[in-house]
Amino acid sequence: MGRNIYMDNSAATRLDEKVLEAMTPWFFNNYAVATSEFGYSIGIEAKEALAEARLILAQKLGASSEEFIFTSGSTESSNLALKGVAKALGGKKGKHMIISKIEDYPVLHSAKELEREGFTIDYLDVDQYGFVDLQQLRKLIGDETILVSIQHGNQEIGTVQDLKSIGEICREKGVLFHTDATHTFTRMPINVDELNLDLVTVSSNTIHGPKGIGGLYVRKNTEIRKIMDGGFQEFDLRPGIENIPGAMGFAKAVQLVTDEENERLQTLRDRIIELVFDRIPDVTLNGHPEKRTPQNANITFHHVEGESITLHMDMYGISVSTGSACFSRSLEASHVIAAIGGDHERAHGSIRFTLGRYNTGEDIDETVDAIEKIVNQLRLISPLSNKEV
Amino acid sequence: MGRNIYMDNSAATRLDEKVLEAMTPWFFNNYAVATSEFGYSIGIEAKEALAEARLILAQKLGASSEEFIFTSGSTESSNLALKGVAKALGGKKGKHMIISKIEDYPVLHSAKELEREGFTIDYLDVDQYGFVDLQQLRKLIGDETILVSIQHGNQEIGTVQDLKSIGEICREKGVLFHTDATHTFTRMPINVDELNLDLVTVSSNTIHGPKGIGGLYVRKNTEIRKIMDGGFQEFDLRPGIENIPGAMGFAKAVQLVTDEENERLQTLRDRIIELVFDRIPDVTLNGHPEKRTPQNANITFHHVEGESITLHMDMYGISVSTGSACFSRSLEASHVIAAIGGDHERAHGSIRFTLGRYNTGEDIDETVDAIEKIVNQLRLISPLSNKEV
Repeated sequence: MGRNIYMDNSAATRLDEKVLEAMTPWFFNNYAVATSEFGYSIGIEAKEALAEARLILAQKLGASSEEFIFTSGSTESSNLALKGVAKALGGKKGKHMIISKIEDYPVLHSAKELEREGFTIDYLDVDQYGFVDLQQLRKLIGDETILVSIQHGNQEIGTVQDLKSIGEICREKGVLFHTDATHTFTRMPINVDELNLDLVTVSSNTIHGPKGIGGLYVRKNTEIRKIMDGGFQEFDLRPGIENIPGAMGFAKAVQLVTDEENERLQTLRDRIIELVFDRIPDVTLNGHPEKRTPQNANITFHHVEGESITLHMDMYGISVSTGSACFSRSLEASHVIAAIGGDHERAHGSIRFTLGRYNTGEDIDETVDAIEKIVNQLRLISPLSNKEV
Repeated sequence: MGRNIYMDNSAATRLDEKVLEAMTPWFFNNYAVATSEFGYSIGIEAKEALAEARLILAQKLGASSEEFIFTSGSTESSNLALKGVAKALGGKKGKHMIISKIEDYPVLHSAKELEREGFTIDYLDVDQYGFVDLQQLRKLIGDETILVSIQHGNQEIGTVQDLKSIGEICREKGVLFHTDATHTFTRMPINVDELNLDLVTVSSNTIHGPKGIGGLYVRKNTEIRKIMDGGFQEFDLRPGIENIPGAMGFAKAVQLVTDEENERLQTLRDRIIELVFDRIPDVTLNGHPEKRTPQNANITFHHVEGESITLHMDMYGISVSTGSACFSRSLEASHVIAAIGGDHERAHGSIRFTLGRYNTGEDIDETVDAIEKIVNQLRLISPLSNKEV
């Protein structure tokens, strides 16, 4: 097989060489445990490096250094946000949380677990584009509500929520506000003060940074407790020997994302959508046409199965997705497309294109050429193609 | 400053170049999400690589592949072992656990957290070497006991417990047995069947593997529930996009440890102890002389403060430790040395030497030369040196 075109979720997981360069000295030259202990100069140097990485990450969110903690990834970050607030406030203020119906699994399944532990969770409806219902949110917040968790950019359809309005409601009602910004961090501006955010999940391996590290912004004085126990690292919110190479790589990955790159990805994204709509009939764009993450396109090709498309695309060496990347067990109809009012067929025929730094205009052309051929062929033989949609 | 001699906990955290080589293809060539989804050949290749890494790790413990799960590190592994069993059995069999008094923070503080949640924890006494009291263990196991968690090699004094006898008692009493093998994995043989182990915490960054990854052995059919929620990775016990570069690096790190290396470390360890005892009066070995991890020496230099020694050693470019490496907030008297009957002075004058692949005989000679000079000087000026010990 020749080269592969990565246009599934892994497109953005390729490490940038410059990230590895930033990590390397901390593999081989200074690998000390980060500490401020008196009389341990290599440890102090390591601690200063960690502080520098932390500052870069905090600043990207408009936050202070001591409000950013490193975790093992965005899954852990969202678990810490929901369960950490539940531990701190569940026995005090109340046991009610509100999330959206289209959250990714870390938030959705943490909420389900809290439900099993006696919490009440409300799941906000979304409209045809995936936007949560702000009136419903306002109505559902009560005296016992301790947290609202609504994602920034959707993992499947790319829709970007109006965090500013949500943040204003939460602030007005005195409720903590968490957002899962796994798919928007660095790709779109996030300022925790402008958006009234108290907790923000961010990810490294979605922006060409290393796997095994992630972060959580925690506003000063937020009532939250750690969910893992051990040492007293990360302001006593996340134990374990600090992953300094990971932190340095994560910070470098953040620095490497530029406005120009985000504009370029958005241009590529719009080109996929435009070419597909020009050349292939019976397609539906999933998510909002403009208010979407720059790296995401999601299109339903009616009368065909997404699995058939991915299989045939794979033969061309092109990887695209049909379901949530976190869902590693089976292909079920997407809960996101169901929530925006799509039927089974719309979910199953949906293809997600995710773009990263290494995708080119040529990739887009090859991908659209391939998918046009494949969809035409599949529709000729598909039993679904006789059905009305 | 010239070269540094790492002889504190970070000695074994230096990445081996061969480990980075094993990780690199998974940074740049195949960075796909691991999946067995039909029609995603790069994902299948990634999944096979992960399975290969998993098998190497499982086999090192005499286990099967599906019994080994990747975590973010040994802290998470021990949290999962204790709290995961608590979740599965706490509402069913009982709320009682037994650990030793000298466990490292992940086990110790997870147990303390479970206590706050209504569990009863018994803390086994240890003798002057740090060995747990087997009679006490046998007596304390009751109908409501769900887990015994006793470490393999101690993090500070290196003492290696008699896991075989402990495992026999647990098996006889029908109680799950977890061990924290962070400091022994690959350095000493561990066979989960011979030792009757149900859960084993293992670490990568203590054997020149990457940070941000660790593992937990979970015997087939063990009643345990996950502690973080999200996707269904790692046999539905640990969610989050798989850290394939980390897993490949961890597996390579395991393969690079040889019996010859372990013997070499033990020889270096014994040389430190022998030279110190030959040349410096008023010293005490902490831990057992033979039944200790090959990479650990821990010696109390009476009449001096450990902090003063580390400070002066640092001026020679040599790093050694006085407290638990996980304890990043302050220097408190070690709970381990207190448990083996040492007083405050014995804890404060204790110095831990940790050895790794890159330490040489020359390091040992330089270190002992330096510490001899330092201890002599400090004793001349120390107010403690007039006290009887």
